[in-house]
Amino acid sequence: MAKRLFVLTLALVIGTVFLVGMGRDRVDEAAGGRTLIRNASMVLTMDPALGTVENADVLIDGDRITAVGPGVDASRAKVIDGRGKIVMPGFVDVHTHLWQSLIRGCATDKELNGWLGGCVLPLQGSPVNGADAYAGTRLSTLDAISTGVTTVTDWSHAFNADFARGNLQALVDSKQRFVFAFMAGTDPWIAPEVRRVQKDVIAPNPLAHLMIGTHPANWNVANVEASEKLSRELGVPLNVHLLESKADPATDQMGVLRRAGALRPGLLANHLVHVTDAELDELAAHDVRVAHNPLSNMRLASGVARVPEMKARNMKVGLGLDGGTNDTSDMFNDMRAAVGLQRAQSTDPARYPTPADVLRMATLGGAEALGLDKEIGSLTPGKKADLQVIDTQALNFAPKVDWASQLVFNTQPVNVQWVFVNGVALKKDGKVTGDNGRVIADAQAAADRVRKYLGR
Amino acid sequence: MAKRLFVLTLALVIGTVFLVGMGRDRVDEAAGGRTLIRNASMVLTMDPALGTVENADVLIDGDRITAVGPGVDASRAKVIDGRGKIVMPGFVDVHTHLWQSLIRGCATDKELNGWLGGCVLPLQGSPVNGADAYAGTRLSTLDAISTGVTTVTDWSHAFNADFARGNLQALVDSKQRFVFAFMAGTDPWIAPEVRRVQKDVIAPNPLAHLMIGTHPANWNVANVEASEKLSRELGVPLNVHLLESKADPATDQMGVLRRAGALRPGLLANHLVHVTDAELDELAAHDVRVAHNPLSNMRLASGVARVPEMKARNMKVGLGLDGGTNDTSDMFNDMRAAVGLQRAQSTDPARYPTPADVLRMATLGGAEALGLDKEIGSLTPGKKADLQVIDTQALNFAPKVDWASQLVFNTQPVNVQWVFVNGVALKKDGKVTGDNGRVIADAQAAADRVRKYLGR
Repeated sequence: MAKRLFVLTLALVIGTVFLVGMGRDRVDEAAGGRTLIRNASMVLTMDPALGTVENADVLIDGDRITAVGPGVDASRAKVIDGRGKIVMPGFVDVHTHLWQSLIRGCATDKELNGWLGGCVLPLQGSPVNGADAYAGTRLSTLDAISTGVTTVTDWSHAFNADFARGNLQALVDSKQRFVFAFMAGTDPWIAPEVRRVQKDVIAPNPLAHLMIGTHPANWNVANVEASEKLSRELGVPLNVHLLESKADPATDQMGVLRRAGALRPGLLANHLVHVTDAELDELAAHDVRVAHNPLSNMRLASGVARVPEMKARNMKVGLGLDGGTNDTSDMFNDMRAAVGLQRAQSTDPARYPTPADVLRMATLGGAEALGLDKEIGSLTPGKKADLQVIDTQALNFAPKVDWASQLVFNTQPVNVQWVFVNGVALKKDGKVTGDNGRVIADAQAAADRVRKYLGR
Repeated sequence: MAKRLFVLTLALVIGTVFLVGMGRDRVDEAAGGRTLIRNASMVLTMDPALGTVENADVLIDGDRITAVGPGVDASRAKVIDGRGKIVMPGFVDVHTHLWQSLIRGCATDKELNGWLGGCVLPLQGSPVNGADAYAGTRLSTLDAISTGVTTVTDWSHAFNADFARGNLQALVDSKQRFVFAFMAGTDPWIAPEVRRVQKDVIAPNPLAHLMIGTHPANWNVANVEASEKLSRELGVPLNVHLLESKADPATDQMGVLRRAGALRPGLLANHLVHVTDAELDELAAHDVRVAHNPLSNMRLASGVARVPEMKARNMKVGLGLDGGTNDTSDMFNDMRAAVGLQRAQSTDPARYPTPADVLRMATLGGAEALGLDKEIGSLTPGKKADLQVIDTQALNFAPKVDWASQLVFNTQPVNVQWVFVNGVALKKDGKVTGDNGRVIADAQAAADRVRKYLGR
């Protein structure tokens, strides 16, 4: 009897060890390791010189991509089986507001200004704090990783210094590459805090970049001028919402930017829906970059952005999910909306952007818009290892017909199996790493507080 | 040594049994059982008399919903924990072509007629067969189940009798509720085959319904007349593509239907994009039903369907995914496209449909369009148990702010945890039941054959 019990116990122990072993990560979390994605069925490099390669390996060494091609030496590397999988650059989201997962589903019956008035602006001067910002941003970063986003551009409302710190800490903790666009202005706390952030948080972190956010409008001139001044002082771009809603042209946004001297290379202009040809000419002449957010434009009844006209002027355009204003965090959906919205409006299937165009817009195009294309945006050996591995053997994706088109029209975030940022795996075998249950609970508690501040 | 080997073997056996046990279904697959979804955080019944209920139970007994409310007696029922979950009716997809998963991603640079010419019409007269149709349809049905679709309306090109049989068999095997729209015409094999199908396949199957598909156009009058005649003989509705592309009005679609006597209650008209006010008046006066397919209209550059104008005439409108012409099989995406496309075009957030309107359109509205609203479309005790359970505690959905809006703007198919059709669970705890690997392999083989027939 004792022996039988011993055998049973041993069996259970071995069974358990077997189970645990099955779930063990075979790829190191820390950078510095070597990971080989072997025999990927397709590698969409987005590098014009390399193109799209079939049955190839991708080697990650430390924080960089070091080789793309067949028969790469895998010694000392952890190996991911790439058969049936597509490897492509991680998405570069050029415009979002990550704290806004706390107001998902808020005022879905309103256009931009109604939504802002109901769900965002009342937080100015409210007790909303760093813990709230942290909770919302943490949830959003995990969600962004899940859909293959490796770089986020987080336009932070920075309602107060504590909020901005919580927001920023969550970005740091996400291990994603990020641009933090700090909403500046004339409030005395802001400029010293932004300088401190640049020195203490951004400069030492190879994943971090800074921009200055502001809102050009004839009722906000002093803040725009202070922001532009700070942007020049720190040598970082300005980041603005421009001609998004049909109500925006009446606030002389272009005039305010022009008089502040802000129309210059690197300025990131979000939306550009209600923009004239002459205004586009002027923006293009100054190498102003654009964040296109089609899902947000649909949700907020903003209209159809003039993306073909931007292309005609060779403007640098990236894609954004735009936080709570489109709610859904599906970059594949954002790509197909970018294609489909233009097509439905024009009834012209050749209208820009095509599926190939949006794949570029969501990766290398976004990196160009942010001025980071030397570092990210394509699977070019030497660039940072920001990439995603997509499983094609799924009910919503198979069979193989034209995979590049299927990436745009068929893919869902659940198909993203691996996401690497700077060589570190943040999604592994379909699971985003992190204590997701706790992040969700914290976000709920913060959303409940925010709801009170909004008086909803 | 022998004893050690014995212990190891026993351990592995027990470990394996443990693994298998973990995956064991706790809810019976066969109809006839009782399943209680207990303490669902929200039950969106779509029944105007019941509304939306919080913290309620939903009881499935056999093939029907028998109770919705708090404290339902659960004796003898398998129990699903509904905390943190939303229960709502399964989606009613009122227009699709399920075989077209075989041409996913095909000719994504073309509008409707270019796509048809490249990816569909060459199959007429080709060796495409029942095995091909079965493989594509089987993949699509599993995929539709994954996104919460419980009823599909499958407009089958029925390229030949064998193709139609394979297509139909896959629908039967899916255990979904379905409407098979059999493309008819003057070919001598068709009418006898459709009569046989109605008698042998549709009539004995409580999940099955029949329609007659045809294409109204001035080059196709004889086929339309034969189809209308068969539709009247069998007492089933006609199902047509109507004014989808800007090239369609030139083919006198309305005149052909009018002269054939086909403008009558129950006719299902798919798309209605390039339709005039007078034509809408005429269609509404005859109680013609509409399938709205916004994702397809975007993909194929068809335009923006005149849905608000249909609503103004009290027409019955449902939502469709439209097979390979929109590729993606995400009904949540289809709902938000239905909202966002109208909003982007009009810049009016109040424009029909609102988020609440599309939830109805995707469920009860679709059932009305198909004439099945006595049986399905809402969680009304006595109706068939076609429903889905959605997990809200996900990175892309949490926190709770306004769940009804979040269903439209935040949800992804991966959040659908359970799908029941006629009381039978077809998606269980996030997994679609079936040999998905084999289905995918069979679809790939069929897609490879079809590609040859298309000369691509």
